[in-house]
Amino acid sequence: MVNYPNKKQGFQKQKQNYSNRGMNFENMINETNEYYLAHDIAVIHKKPIPIQIVKVDYPSRSGAVIKEAYYKIPSTTDYNGIYKGHYIDFEAKETQNKTSFPLSNIHPHQVKHLKKIDEHGGISFLLIFIKVLDEIYLLESSDLISYHNRSVDGRKSITFKEIKEKGQLIPEGFAPRVNYLKIVDYLIEKKG
Amino acid sequence: MVNYPNKKQGFQKQKQNYSNRGMNFENMINETNEYYLAHDIAVIHKKPIPIQIVKVDYPSRSGAVIKEAYYKIPSTTDYNGIYKGHYIDFEAKETQNKTSFPLSNIHPHQVKHLKKIDEHGGISFLLIFIKVLDEIYLLESSDLISYHNRSVDGRKSITFKEIKEKGQLIPEGFAPRVNYLKIVDYLIEKKG
Repeated sequence: MVNYPNKKQGFQKQKQNYSNRGMNFENMINETNEYYLAHDIAVIHKKPIPIQIVKVDYPSRSGAVIKEAYYKIPSTTDYNGIYKGHYIDFEAKETQNKTSFPLSNIHPHQVKHLKKIDEHGGISFLLIFIKVLDEIYLLESSDLISYHNRSVDGRKSITFKEIKEKGQLIPEGFAPRVNYLKIVDYLIEKKG
Repeated sequence: MVNYPNKKQGFQKQKQNYSNRGMNFENMINETNEYYLAHDIAVIHKKPIPIQIVKVDYPSRSGAVIKEAYYKIPSTTDYNGIYKGHYIDFEAKETQNKTSFPLSNIHPHQVKHLKKIDEHGGISFLLIFIKVLDEIYLLESSDLISYHNRSVDGRKSITFKEIKEKGQLIPEGFAPRVNYLKIVDYLIEKKG
C-alpha cells in the first residue's frame, strides 16, 4: 500500500523511511538481490512459494491453467544463494508489533533448516523488519535457535531490546536498498 | 508408470535398472537428497515450481484455494544446497532420445545461471538421465556452456558420445539411488 504524504506535515522534511517508499519487505529484498546480481556481487534468489497442484486445464495449445492448488508449508527458507564462494541462506520477516517479534512467525522446520545450514558451514540468518522502528536487523541463526529453544517453556517471542542487542542493524541505503551483505561480510570475517 | 515384468523373459535374470524401478528422475533425485539430509551428508532441496497466482478463494477458515494460476519460466535451476561447505547448484533432465540430448531442454537463462554460479565459486552442473542407456551422467556447467555456445550456429544437441566423453557416469546404487555427490567429491578435489 502506498503511503500518501500527510497534509498536516506541511513543509516539514519527511524522513524517507523504508515503509513510506511504498514497498513491502519481500519486494525490498528482491530488489536488493537484483542489484547484487546485476552488479555481479552475489547470486541470491527467492524460492517460489510451494504449491500443491491438484487440477490443471489445457484450454488452448498456448498453455496450461492451474484450476485448483493449495499452499504448502515451506520446508526450507525463502532465500538462498552464493556470495564470495559462501552458501547463504535466510528467511525474511516483517512485524507490525510494538515491542517484540513473535516466534510463531517462523515454522519450526525453518529454524531446524537454518541450524543445519550453519552446521554444514553455510551462513544462515533471519532478517527482521521492525516496522514501528523502521529498522531492519540481521539475527544469526545461532541466536535465533537460542530464542527458539527458550520458547519451549518460556517467552514465545524475541523482544526488540534483544534483537537490538544480539542482532546487527542493516545500514539504510538507496542502491541496494537493504544491503544485508555488509553484515554478511562481518560474519564471513568472524568465521575466519 | 510401473513396468510390469515381461512374461517372455521367463527365468532370465532381470537387470534392476533405473527405469524399471518405476520412478521418474525427479523422484529419484528427491529420494537421494532425502537420504543425504537424513544422514547429515548434505542439505540439498528441490525448489518449488514457479507459479503466477491470479485468483485465490477462501471457501472456509481452514485455508485458501488457488483457483487460477499459471506456470512461469524458471529463472534458476531446480536444485541447490550445501555440501562440505560448498554451494551446489544443478539442473536435472531426462531424455527418451536415442542418440543425443537436445539443448532446447534447458532454458538459456538456466545455462546463464549455472555459469554465474561457477564464476562465484560454486559447484554447478547438469544431471542427464539417458533412458535408452539407463545411465545418468553429470556434466559440468563449463562443458554445458561450451555446447550451448556451439548451438548458436551449430549442432543444437549434445551427442551421447560427447556426454560419455566429457561427463561423469553416476555410479548406480540403492541407497542413495543417484549418488551424484561421489562425482561432486571429485569436482571439489579438482577445484583444489
